[in-house]
Amino acid sequence: MDNSFGTIYRITSFGESHGALGGIILDGVPAGLEFDLEFIQNELDRRRPGQSNLTTTRVEEDQVKVLSGIFNNKTSGAPICLIIENNDINSLIYENYKQFLRPSHVDYSALKKYGGYSDYRGSGRFSGRITAGFVMAGAIAKQILKKYNIVIFAYTKSIGKVIDDDERPSLNELEKLFEIRNKSLVRAINHEKSKLMEQLIENVKNQKDSIGGTIKCIVSNFPAGKGGPIFNSIEANISKAIFAIPAIKGIEFGAGFKASKMKGSEHNDPWILKDGKIQTIKNDAGGIIGGISTGMPIEFTIAVKPPSSIGVPQKTVNIEMMENVEIEFSGRHDPCIVPRVVPVVEAMTANVLLDFLLIEGYIPRIFKQ
Amino acid sequence: MDNSFGTIYRITSFGESHGALGGIILDGVPAGLEFDLEFIQNELDRRRPGQSNLTTTRVEEDQVKVLSGIFNNKTSGAPICLIIENNDINSLIYENYKQFLRPSHVDYSALKKYGGYSDYRGSGRFSGRITAGFVMAGAIAKQILKKYNIVIFAYTKSIGKVIDDDERPSLNELEKLFEIRNKSLVRAINHEKSKLMEQLIENVKNQKDSIGGTIKCIVSNFPAGKGGPIFNSIEANISKAIFAIPAIKGIEFGAGFKASKMKGSEHNDPWILKDGKIQTIKNDAGGIIGGISTGMPIEFTIAVKPPSSIGVPQKTVNIEMMENVEIEFSGRHDPCIVPRVVPVVEAMTANVLLDFLLIEGYIPRIFKQ
Amino acid sequence: MDNSFGTIYRITSFGESHGALGGIILDGVPAGLEFDLEFIQNELDRRRPGQSNLTTTRVEEDQVKVLSGIFNNKTSGAPICLIIENNDINSLIYENYKQFLRPSHVDYSALKKYGGYSDYRGSGRFSGRITAGFVMAGAIAKQILKKYNIVIFAYTKSIGKVIDDDERPSLNELEKLFEIRNKSLVRAINHEKSKLMEQLIENVKNQKDSIGGTIKCIVSNFPAGKGGPIFNSIEANISKAIFAIPAIKGIEFGAGFKASKMKGSEHNDPWILKDGKIQTIKNDAGGIIGGISTGMPIEFTIAVKPPSSIGVPQKTVNIEMMENVEIEFSGRHDPCIVPRVVPVVEAMTANVLLDFLLIEGYIPRIFKQ
Amino acid sequence: MDNSFGTIYRITSFGESHGALGGIILDGVPAGLEFDLEFIQNELDRRRPGQSNLTTTRVEEDQVKVLSGIFNNKTSGAPICLIIENNDINSLIYENYKQFLRPSHVDYSALKKYGGYSDYRGSGRFSGRITAGFVMAGAIAKQILKKYNIVIFAYTKSIGKVIDDDERPSLNELEKLFEIRNKSLVRAINHEKSKLMEQLIENVKNQKDSIGGTIKCIVSNFPAGKGGPIFNSIEANISKAIFAIPAIKGIEFGAGFKASKMKGSEHNDPWILKDGKIQTIKNDAGGIIGGISTGMPIEFTIAVKPPSSIGVPQKTVNIEMMENVEIEFSGRHDPCIVPRVVPVVEAMTANVLLDFLLIEGYIPRIFKQ
Repeated sequence: MDNSFGTIYRITSFGESHGALGGIILDGVPAGLEFDLEFIQNELDRRRPGQSNLTTTRVEEDQVKVLSGIFNNKTSGAPICLIIENNDINSLIYENYKQFLRPSHVDYSALKKYGGYSDYRGSGRFSGRITAGFVMAGAIAKQILKKYNIVIFAYTKSIGKVIDDDERPSLNELEKLFEIRNKSLVRAINHEKSKLMEQLIENVKNQKDSIGGTIKCIVSNFPAGKGGPIFNSIEANISKAIFAIPAIKGIEFGAGFKASKMKGSEHNDPWILKDGKIQTIKNDAGGIIGGISTGMPIEFTIAVKPPSSIGVPQKTVNIEMMENVEIEFSGRHDPCIVPRVVPVVEAMTANVLLDFLLIEGYIPRIFKQ
Repeated sequence: MDNSFGTIYRITSFGESHGALGGIILDGVPAGLEFDLEFIQNELDRRRPGQSNLTTTRVEEDQVKVLSGIFNNKTSGAPICLIIENNDINSLIYENYKQFLRPSHVDYSALKKYGGYSDYRGSGRFSGRITAGFVMAGAIAKQILKKYNIVIFAYTKSIGKVIDDDERPSLNELEKLFEIRNKSLVRAINHEKSKLMEQLIENVKNQKDSIGGTIKCIVSNFPAGKGGPIFNSIEANISKAIFAIPAIKGIEFGAGFKASKMKGSEHNDPWILKDGKIQTIKNDAGGIIGGISTGMPIEFTIAVKPPSSIGVPQKTVNIEMMENVEIEFSGRHDPCIVPRVVPVVEAMTANVLLDFLLIEGYIPRIFKQ
Repeated sequence: MDNSFGTIYRITSFGESHGALGGIILDGVPAGLEFDLEFIQNELDRRRPGQSNLTTTRVEEDQVKVLSGIFNNKTSGAPICLIIENNDINSLIYENYKQFLRPSHVDYSALKKYGGYSDYRGSGRFSGRITAGFVMAGAIAKQILKKYNIVIFAYTKSIGKVIDDDERPSLNELEKLFEIRNKSLVRAINHEKSKLMEQLIENVKNQKDSIGGTIKCIVSNFPAGKGGPIFNSIEANISKAIFAIPAIKGIEFGAGFKASKMKGSEHNDPWILKDGKIQTIKNDAGGIIGGISTGMPIEFTIAVKPPSSIGVPQKTVNIEMMENVEIEFSGRHDPCIVPRVVPVVEAMTANVLLDFLLIEGYIPRIFKQ
Repeated sequence: MDNSFGTIYRITSFGESHGALGGIILDGVPAGLEFDLEFIQNELDRRRPGQSNLTTTRVEEDQVKVLSGIFNNKTSGAPICLIIENNDINSLIYENYKQFLRPSHVDYSALKKYGGYSDYRGSGRFSGRITAGFVMAGAIAKQILKKYNIVIFAYTKSIGKVIDDDERPSLNELEKLFEIRNKSLVRAINHEKSKLMEQLIENVKNQKDSIGGTIKCIVSNFPAGKGGPIFNSIEANISKAIFAIPAIKGIEFGAGFKASKMKGSEHNDPWILKDGKIQTIKNDAGGIIGGISTGMPIEFTIAVKPPSSIGVPQKTVNIEMMENVEIEFSGRHDPCIVPRVVPVVEAMTANVLLDFLLIEGYIPRIFKQ
């Protein structure tokens, strides 16, 4: 239950950071889909460590391997099992530290939940490495959504206090946006801000510290009238999916927290008939009203906390001796996880939206050629 | 699927704003619980319209009625059905407007989803009135959690730009906080700010406009080590539950969006052994790390948008004539929904947390006397 | 969880035998379906007590009432709540007997599960009366399946040792079969056997005893290629649904237990191309292979035990005194429940099959006119 | 959805008969359980092909491999992934036959469901080989149930018309029963009948034919008061689990189909206080009343059809040419699958019962030492 997500398109995650591998099972993928290994690998590469000197020094190839579900290079309707292997593992350090509660790490809550039996090496199941599986699933979901012209695009909106103020990037130039973002080491879409963000990360890295940020995600061409009321609203499901990603502390849709300061006359999105299409003049609703899509872009922003692994001395408890201590933890880690979370956000969004469209019967169970 | 929530403690919502009634089925309530009708009614009264002149003029008694599941004034283990009747219904106005898409209302998305068959009177299933069922379920959940000393407390943190800056109300004086909040017409806990908030709502009401706000929710004494990783994290489930409430646009846990601007050395919560108990010096994590409770208070803040129903002229589309128009909608509505959402947030939080504790086997299936 | 069934077409049962009412919530019914109250009532009437002197003497009108989900006499996409009220309640007798464990009744297992808090009056939640809700849900499911020419037909195949040997009634004359069965007091399709069955029931009734029987159910025109492998097979889901009905002790598909005595060369159903259609010459598979429909009629048979309520002296335990006793229970009950289970079997089958076709996207979410 | 089963103890199946491997994910296994690889392997060996000359000639070692979830030789609370590799694959034959619908095989229903994209080699996902994963999961479930003294025992009750008439083997000698059964090539517990069954299988094998049979399963020491009413009854869940096994055509609990011929006075199980324990004199209920356990042994019997793969000429359709043909299929297959289904029945029963006890909070989430 803990490790599965979705109704018809249902993904099941397994593997640990310092175990043999990380994997994902995809159930409910329509049969007959051309299997695009290269696209999955490209998506994984966007999340992979070691893309620049702004990430952890752990070196992993993250080569996707197919264990089941593909036949004659097409999806067969069977559950698809995809894995990546763990190769660059150095668990020694975790043995040294296991009597200390690392601040803002899962050590204490996991200890209480699993009674000391959980795999603490590299944070085990709680490692960001687990999200590689989300990305593999999302790659297939994206590929299917693409057939319906639905495109999911996320980018880094801020790192620390360096903020890209441009609220609504023009989706007319989506390809250009993809290109800019993919060239940015921090996955930003404003060249100048990107440089400032890189500098900031470089600085905190040199201080053995870390930094947070925000990510904006936009879905274009999602059809109107999909989703559901109350417990099955699009916001409910996207937020559930996004909080499955480690380090996320907040999510807001459309105007989000700003809406709390607005009057109805400011916030309401007037309807307009334009080019024969019913749309809204602006999109403070973020493309969702009453839990259901309006046909306008789905938009949301998430807050990512700074990585808890830092190299400065910290106060904590030695649970073996039961005494307060101050200690400096070492180890390999990212000074800022935001750029690597960008593809994960896209992936989990794709997983949710594909499931909605399968539930609605909008996408068929077989892709005939 | 759309209208059920939870795994073991599973609630199913039914009823419409202008139908005969609104109701909720509660499955999985342990047997032998003393049925406290008065407490349920008190909780409902906190959500009821007409508590002050800051709310809608619709008059509803909202008297809870029990249809099943209670035997000898105790829960029997059978599904409990609770309803409130709708009495003050005036649907005429909705007939007049049905060819117009009300801005930021669900009219268009519901039209696309249900093909024009959904009950549009008083927004039907999309009305805030549906949340009365959430509150009835939450009242029973709260009563059970109370047995374990777990208390859920929500309050209005801001209305428009009037913000209660006090980040962390002292939970040592929880009873006093309850008292202050319950006396505040806007459910704030700062007397001075409460008055300013009331004035603001009064003002927007006079302008036939509306206003948003934020709500903070704190859960004290939730045990450490409950919840789950990734897809079953506490944040994932609370956020899913909260976005089931109409008008919510954002949620953040602990430091939330502020965490995105912080360094790890600022954000990390140092562990400390104090009074023989392992705890954190501060609580920017909001009581949850890795999706699992730390034993510190669970804290989150949500953004509530201004009600979409306003009385000023608005641009929209007449879908019968397929033409752009400007129109002034009339009708009864709240100028600010925040105070009435406060008990709903508490209720949905209680529903989620009870389910977690039943899943973990922390709460038994029978309350023996 | 205990009281809900289905994925997209999801039904939730509530109410007790001697409570105010019995009810059902139907979630996931497509919008725009003409609401046919009369058909639902007809289906309920087939299950209603007091149809003949072969049933219990409890008199209930079982008039269906709609509490939600219908708008302008069509389904609105909202959850539909249907109830019947309980009127002819005589609970006194249950008070007299509550210290005795009625043999083969749920008294002891319910006591252990609910700690003595469950409503024991008329067997509470465990009463056959709960199945009225299944029938109301099934009536709507049937109405939808009918649009796709899918017809579900069940009949009494045996009462005690009186067995209708005709394995495969000709579905070409389905209307005639309906007529015969509906005229039979025991819901048999063989006139002669029907009379013998009636006599048998009359006899056991006079002996204050009860009798079991079997029911056969046939689904015609269910499309090929629906259902799923292993955990989501049609057999798995139908059997789960059928065992939700009280008093069922067995189920077999196609050749069923006879298959266990057969050779492959006898059991295998040869494929044949006939009238341009791929079909099997016979149908020992019961219309399902590998959990998926073959396009042949789905066929299964179920075993119904004799009602546990009988008027002859029985050995049991007085749990207050903790002593062995012999006691004669009185009360109103059916000498044979089989005829009244027939419509319940049809209903649960309809509920399962509709859900499959909604999951597959075979049936749309809106019925446009 | 198709490939997952269970609520808290949730298993997810993947892999194909002629793919690289077969596997299973186990979610919800309590942490701290000693991992007993040898027991899992022993259970697998009971299902493995090639144990005698009565099974298929396919040779597979079926060595279990652990991919995740075990840490320091204990369960860690993380999802456990177990696999077996496929080595002795000969797919050529399936290429030769792929235009023919093999009678009573899934060819046609899979074609309709997956549009021709499913892996047909060795029946792909529909192969009995998939049940190796069920057995691996069941081995861990059994190990946990054993801690609570709950033992699951299945045996071959009949092959064709050779029937072991002994209704109720004495559970007092359970160890002896295990020994007898494990020595029987057909997994029977009556030595004489076992020999007759072996002969029968030998005979049908020589005729290139196949034969069916029945399996009885008994669970001892399952506590009273577990399970649930209607949709969550033990029968409902066990039957759903059992029909996930290929080739099952029927299931009956306790007296089963015989109950349909009985009077209430015969079928009712009188309660008796004996040795200070409330029990029934006989057990026609099969240990379950109202869907809930009575504390008596849970007993059920299942019907297994003869394998569809036979070597005699059969009528069928060539779907490429769309013409009726008669053809003799060759290939490796079991003449009788019953003996190899015995451990699978035990495993699926264990999976269901463990889930019930986790849901009830009867089994903790951590096994402390």
